[in-house]
Amino acid sequence: MSQNIVIIGAVALGPKAACRLKRLKPDSNVIMIDKDNLISYGGCGIPYFISGDISDSEQLQATTFHMLRDVKFFKEIKDVQAITNTEVLAIDREKKIVFVQSLIDQKQQQIPYDKLVLGMGSTPRILPIEGNQLDGIFTVSDLNKAIRIKEEITDGKIGKAVVIGAGAIGLEMAEAMSDLWEIETSVVEIMDQILPGIISPQMARMAQHHMEENDISFYMGEKVERFEGESRVSKVITNNRTLEADLVIMAAGVTPNSKLAKDAGLEVSPKGGIIVNKQMQTSDPDIYAGGDCVEILNIITGKPGYYPLGSLANREGRVIGSNLAGNKQEFEGAIGSFVIKLFEISVANAGLSIETALKEGFDAVSAFIVQFDKAHFLSDRNLMFLELVVEKGTGRVLGIQGLGDAGHAMVARVNAVAGILKYKPTTMDISNLELPYAPPFSSAMDILNALGNVAENILAGKNKVIDIETFVEYWEKRETNESIFIDCRESGNAEPLVNRYPKHWKSIPQGQLSDRLSEVPQDKKIILICNTGSRSYEAQVILDHAGFKDIQNIQGGTAAIEKWGMKI
Amino acid sequence: MSQNIVIIGAVALGPKAACRLKRLKPDSNVIMIDKDNLISYGGCGIPYFISGDISDSEQLQATTFHMLRDVKFFKEIKDVQAITNTEVLAIDREKKIVFVQSLIDQKQQQIPYDKLVLGMGSTPRILPIEGNQLDGIFTVSDLNKAIRIKEEITDGKIGKAVVIGAGAIGLEMAEAMSDLWEIETSVVEIMDQILPGIISPQMARMAQHHMEENDISFYMGEKVERFEGESRVSKVITNNRTLEADLVIMAAGVTPNSKLAKDAGLEVSPKGGIIVNKQMQTSDPDIYAGGDCVEILNIITGKPGYYPLGSLANREGRVIGSNLAGNKQEFEGAIGSFVIKLFEISVANAGLSIETALKEGFDAVSAFIVQFDKAHFLSDRNLMFLELVVEKGTGRVLGIQGLGDAGHAMVARVNAVAGILKYKPTTMDISNLELPYAPPFSSAMDILNALGNVAENILAGKNKVIDIETFVEYWEKRETNESIFIDCRESGNAEPLVNRYPKHWKSIPQGQLSDRLSEVPQDKKIILICNTGSRSYEAQVILDHAGFKDIQNIQGGTAAIEKWGMKI
Repeated sequence: MSQNIVIIGAVALGPKAACRLKRLKPDSNVIMIDKDNLISYGGCGIPYFISGDISDSEQLQATTFHMLRDVKFFKEIKDVQAITNTEVLAIDREKKIVFVQSLIDQKQQQIPYDKLVLGMGSTPRILPIEGNQLDGIFTVSDLNKAIRIKEEITDGKIGKAVVIGAGAIGLEMAEAMSDLWEIETSVVEIMDQILPGIISPQMARMAQHHMEENDISFYMGEKVERFEGESRVSKVITNNRTLEADLVIMAAGVTPNSKLAKDAGLEVSPKGGIIVNKQMQTSDPDIYAGGDCVEILNIITGKPGYYPLGSLANREGRVIGSNLAGNKQEFEGAIGSFVIKLFEISVANAGLSIETALKEGFDAVSAFIVQFDKAHFLSDRNLMFLELVVEKGTGRVLGIQGLGDAGHAMVARVNAVAGILKYKPTTMDISNLELPYAPPFSSAMDILNALGNVAENILAGKNKVIDIETFVEYWEKRETNESIFIDCRESGNAEPLVNRYPKHWKSIPQGQLSDRLSEVPQDKKIILICNTGSRSYEAQVILDHAGFKDIQNIQGGTAAIEKWGMKI
Repeated sequence: MSQNIVIIGAVALGPKAACRLKRLKPDSNVIMIDKDNLISYGGCGIPYFISGDISDSEQLQATTFHMLRDVKFFKEIKDVQAITNTEVLAIDREKKIVFVQSLIDQKQQQIPYDKLVLGMGSTPRILPIEGNQLDGIFTVSDLNKAIRIKEEITDGKIGKAVVIGAGAIGLEMAEAMSDLWEIETSVVEIMDQILPGIISPQMARMAQHHMEENDISFYMGEKVERFEGESRVSKVITNNRTLEADLVIMAAGVTPNSKLAKDAGLEVSPKGGIIVNKQMQTSDPDIYAGGDCVEILNIITGKPGYYPLGSLANREGRVIGSNLAGNKQEFEGAIGSFVIKLFEISVANAGLSIETALKEGFDAVSAFIVQFDKAHFLSDRNLMFLELVVEKGTGRVLGIQGLGDAGHAMVARVNAVAGILKYKPTTMDISNLELPYAPPFSSAMDILNALGNVAENILAGKNKVIDIETFVEYWEKRETNESIFIDCRESGNAEPLVNRYPKHWKSIPQGQLSDRLSEVPQDKKIILICNTGSRSYEAQVILDHAGFKDIQNIQGGTAAIEKWGMKI
């Protein structure tokens, strides 16, 4: 007997669940309902549509074989009935009926279901401030809005844009508007770093510096208080300044669309995410939910988390499709993985950042490394920056973040850690990760192995490190003469700095240190530096062994300082 | 009390163990002995030195900060005594002494040790055939030999070269000689595929096809019987042909240098690898060994294996260094990971290939997929080919192989599986791998997730697949009319083939199949094809449901056929 499946929402999770089910049980009757006219599109591609990388919005709706995923496509190719421009008003769980209303002719109807799937997605947060209804203020929530934004941009009337929120969408939109369209773009962020909660402040500063070099202005730790303008927005007023704006992108996060579920009496978390078990069932076993409208387990913390990502929605959708067909597949939860391309760099994450780990109660520390993405003797090598978050005592790896060029080399390393995080690896597992090796792809000791080694040395108390922010604090207080900065590189590298700061910057190449211990002051904090933090670590071992006490090694060395945007 | 550590071999493992130990226990006296004059170099970089990517051999000996790793470097920077041009004649385990002899002045001496480390590496296999001592026949075993090969090449007298062995070194050397130096290069391989044991015959054929397009000739399944020439080689005679050769590279595998160990009564495996425990101790707990001269555990099979790779040597060296300092670190073994760049493509492996899995007694099958390395709506996407080897019944993942462009995108996927293999993942773990996602780096459903899904469908008996080799068999027998080839792409794509082969090639777009079932013959084997194997799988679901029995889906579709080098 064929079952009736009704799916609310037809962007990512819905179509995936529908198609998987149809492949397993071709007899099922599947109805997808969406309030929009456009369905089954790659929402994550919107910034690339705005930037012009994708010329036509239909490309976001096309399959790899160039068919448009519209109502006709689902009917003919997938045997799934898609009902668009239609809102679901309510769910009657007892009668197993959904009440729907057409947004075209307001006609209502009742659709019966055996199993129901909720894939309603999320809604961008609209700041509850004066002027938020002015024309020219947009969220990036759906393809129709994206088409309107692009029309405004291509009309050539937008000279200045303000993006509110330095999360992924905000940054991608900032790049999209600035890069091809040369719109003067500012980003206002209420937190004091970009990508808050995802990467460390140090890495965030590096990424921000790169965007600033590409003409994006940032106003960090500022709160938008109101918008001004006649019918159209012309000014964004923060607690600190007034920014002119022909266009505003509000990218201040999203909230799950769970009202329907709540009204139907399903369990919804205090933060608004529909609660599901590992089989993606809600508190009503005949109703599944997934994607941006649900909360799922964070595998690292063991606590619920909210991850509005198209990639998770797709995988959850497949699990739901399998289970609708009678299987018992499980979706274990999320580690929270992330990547973004920002002009010529990429930034990625898997698991917890150091701040998040500390906030979650882990006694954690992070190890930072700079190394080439391939053998250092090849000329087309690029530097890559990785940060590993580990728990003290256990050595458990909680997360990794990376910054590299815009290719896949850095992501290749984050991928390797992303895969193992659920198995609770320790630093030793990272030190001995056996990634495929050849000179065009890595060093014999891959940067990840080296990162595991650095973390092990930090946890063992052998490598006493400071990050760039801490270095900057010491450096800015250098006139107090409490610290001395010892440059462990060859003297030619150190010379310009020694000449400029003779009182504070001292050159002792690491290979000469054992013989020049008498030149190291006994009464000061000793800050060791080299190109990347590796020779300065060796210097620290020598000083430790010689009985010096207050020694700190700058993780990432001059390479990290430069990337951070500091000129010494 | 400081201990005396003697290390035999100073290329990869030795220096790593020495430096790690010195960082942990700076008081240790460490002596490294090597029979060569050049030490601590990146041997894996030799093909890049031959190709001219690296202009100077010293770059392979340099640190990232441009210091030459020679005797002086180890003395001054690392406080390690390196004794070069010196052979170790014997080990007296009772007296804890090694007997050495200078290769310069033949002087002998005895060096006492508290702990000994064996890192003697391996020796390339010399084919025991007539003419093997002629000039112009080289192995690629050390930097001095590489320098001599390069001198011969840059002299401009080499017009034709023959490489014996299509393993990693053979292929890299073939590319190196052909690409920049335009030497007419042939590869003779006794097995019937390149990279035997590492990738499947299908993927090997794809890689070979790419190299052939780059002017390398291959003679597969041929045995070299003798070399001819006056004092210098001029011909290579196989069982099938005579090849002219100004230069021969013998790359027919390596054997572990374990004679010293065997003579000293240490346990050595029948295949010649020194036997070590997880702490890298030999049967004498005061003697450690690692790198190319030892056997280690294959984590997938649970059996010993031989992995002469610089990357493993480095990591094993660090474990030995830690243990020399009194720790109890373990090296778990190897999964057997591998990558190679071949002109504009890369080929990688982690774990077992399908052939190796079957040979090891696993009841295994492989799933093959073709997909873009980033979102399909971005124009700079590239196709990538992945093969997942899984055990029937359990769904356990035994290995993965990939072929992609020369960037890191394909390796990024193999990395993710390489990391988890030791945890015995199943296809479901691959389907739900949470890799960082953004359109420039992957699809929302990453190719790896999709590959897990394909494997699951194959194991469930829903996706009945054949590889390209099997397709070719059927295709070559097409005149028997036992099979019909149904093209599931849109009719425009199928038309040229339908016109050329009206009796055998039939166009039924997947979306029309349900309505055109009457056109599908009941009495023939049905071979389904599309661009990649995805729509043809959907077609198979439809035919299955309609009761058709003998249906096969071509994994990888026309994309794989083309990569394989077949023109239909």
